[in-house]
Amino acid sequence: MEHLYKYEQLLSFTKNIFIKINCSEEDAETAAKALLSADLRGIDSHGVARLTGYVRLWEAKRANTKPHIKIIHETPSTAVVDGNSGLGLVVAPYAMQVAINKAKNVGTGWVSVQNSNHFGIAGYHAMKALEHDMIGIAMTNASALVAPTFSVERLLGTNPICVAVPAGSEPAFVADLATTTAANGKLEILQRKNQKAPEGWIQDKDGNISTNPHELKSGGALLPLGGDREHGSHKGYALGAIVDIFSAVLSGANYGPWVPPFPAYVAMPTDMPGKGIGHFFGAMRIDAFRPADDFKKNMDQWIKRFRSAKTVEGEEQVLIPGDPEREMETERLIRGIPLLHSVSEDLKYLGNRFGVEL
Amino acid sequence: MEHLYKYEQLLSFTKNIFIKINCSEEDAETAAKALLSADLRGIDSHGVARLTGYVRLWEAKRANTKPHIKIIHETPSTAVVDGNSGLGLVVAPYAMQVAINKAKNVGTGWVSVQNSNHFGIAGYHAMKALEHDMIGIAMTNASALVAPTFSVERLLGTNPICVAVPAGSEPAFVADLATTTAANGKLEILQRKNQKAPEGWIQDKDGNISTNPHELKSGGALLPLGGDREHGSHKGYALGAIVDIFSAVLSGANYGPWVPPFPAYVAMPTDMPGKGIGHFFGAMRIDAFRPADDFKKNMDQWIKRFRSAKTVEGEEQVLIPGDPEREMETERLIRGIPLLHSVSEDLKYLGNRFGVEL
Repeated sequence: MEHLYKYEQLLSFTKNIFIKINCSEEDAETAAKALLSADLRGIDSHGVARLTGYVRLWEAKRANTKPHIKIIHETPSTAVVDGNSGLGLVVAPYAMQVAINKAKNVGTGWVSVQNSNHFGIAGYHAMKALEHDMIGIAMTNASALVAPTFSVERLLGTNPICVAVPAGSEPAFVADLATTTAANGKLEILQRKNQKAPEGWIQDKDGNISTNPHELKSGGALLPLGGDREHGSHKGYALGAIVDIFSAVLSGANYGPWVPPFPAYVAMPTDMPGKGIGHFFGAMRIDAFRPADDFKKNMDQWIKRFRSAKTVEGEEQVLIPGDPEREMETERLIRGIPLLHSVSEDLKYLGNRFGVEL
Repeated sequence: MEHLYKYEQLLSFTKNIFIKINCSEEDAETAAKALLSADLRGIDSHGVARLTGYVRLWEAKRANTKPHIKIIHETPSTAVVDGNSGLGLVVAPYAMQVAINKAKNVGTGWVSVQNSNHFGIAGYHAMKALEHDMIGIAMTNASALVAPTFSVERLLGTNPICVAVPAGSEPAFVADLATTTAANGKLEILQRKNQKAPEGWIQDKDGNISTNPHELKSGGALLPLGGDREHGSHKGYALGAIVDIFSAVLSGANYGPWVPPFPAYVAMPTDMPGKGIGHFFGAMRIDAFRPADDFKKNMDQWIKRFRSAKTVEGEEQVLIPGDPEREMETERLIRGIPLLHSVSEDLKYLGNRFGVEL
């Protein structure tokens, strides 16, 4: 059962909740926009459904809502940002802006972030570069749910990568992908519906392929993109590892099995080698390579050629990365954002508690 | 049937062949080292077996062995290099050095290349960064063999990505991966042995899943990493697209279905939008983020933790990206490089023609 909410209504509610947990008005607005972009783009698992989770992180003193975010090391094209345990929804926009500023000065900017928390969807942050005629890149590590090829242990998060590329008359190319066969959110849908997962998404606690979507609760793991060795899971594992290294080994955050969990009731890992979770952002100015107009003309041709490719029977069109999310955003801005009954009940409970009306 | 050749013997032979097709001694040495690194690392499809192919590109005037390679646009952290139709084996080391030099100056360097040819394996070029305590990145587009999700048309190459990361006492992390389920070289092995391919590697000319390794000759296509939509092929497609855009749309090279083919007997695409094939290189100085020693200590811990993970039954160890290739290199430097009878006959024919002894 679902109910539709206007974007503005959810945005205002979310902002007010963030203010209630001591965010400044500006930070609350920044965080609310970043969080709600997930709902708009159809990545419901990472949106307002997680608001209670962020509040719990604050209650558990794992998230600092008055952070002093700062650059702790830099060169003309790089920086390391210390998020001071802030909400990733606030730390990430700060760090992405640092990357964009550096790109303005020397062509590109690259920022690795330590001591942060979960930042919502990678796409929101990478797309910030588009308005500056830059390519935007965003990635983050996350707590370990994924077993590398041949491992029964979970050592990597779903570690998403987003690359956003501006075009001319065509909409931007926005590839935002977890480095697993299926994102955790898709598994959650199957769990709710009690449906089987396709083979190649998960393994059980002994490393056998499983179709039980509840497997993660009993020691199972998500599988890297590719699913098994024969289908290239070592590549998905390598991609997730690259995200982990760029986000955390390069910044001094926690990596691998030491990344702090999002649910505040899950115990923190012991002997953590770094600070908080890590992100990585990049911005590349198009005209640091060639005139932006020439680039955009070629991007438009690229997009049109792929979109007009002959399709396999039963499919209407070859999609460009970002197409489904953009169409969802257009629709939801008009029709509203559907929330599951359990999610809206959860938000109402939160609202009652803090005296904020949904 | 295979015969073992000493690395030095093949290197010297290859260098002399490149000299015979008018490469300078320096360029011939550069090209031979880059090409042979594929044989050493066990990526036999991209090594000396392709030497005749490079010679044919020169004969067809598609490769210029006296190129004037130059930077045509730059900022402190970026450059576009025009390869002047040179061998990619020579153009790529030039461009990677530009990236490294820029990283020395401003922390990172990013170079997009137009007007080049095939560059061998991505790993060789990315690994050049390691000796400077930098992370190295290399990618290239290639002629279209891969069908995006839902497409029956081949629009992307196998478009590999390599990321090489230095460690301390542990060997470097080197992830070198085609953005397809299986690299073309693996399919060639099945073709020679007339064995079936696993499902998820290829589709036939109508877009149906096929296990016939000869399918590409009759209009079929390789599949993006993931294999089908349900297993994330849209992610493999997006990764291949990112490589295409960074390598070619950013540089002014050809992209998508317009990338020139490696075999000189295959006609060039019509209405090409750019120049030659494109590559993309990156170098990030570790100490542009944090002290290299701290980083390396963490990388060592990362590597040790993953390598010692509990394995699924029947597997000895969780591998670190780069492990199999490094072990192969060690073995082949000692025991020699095995060449198929057909390959060594091909090289002998080439040697006779140019008066170079194998």
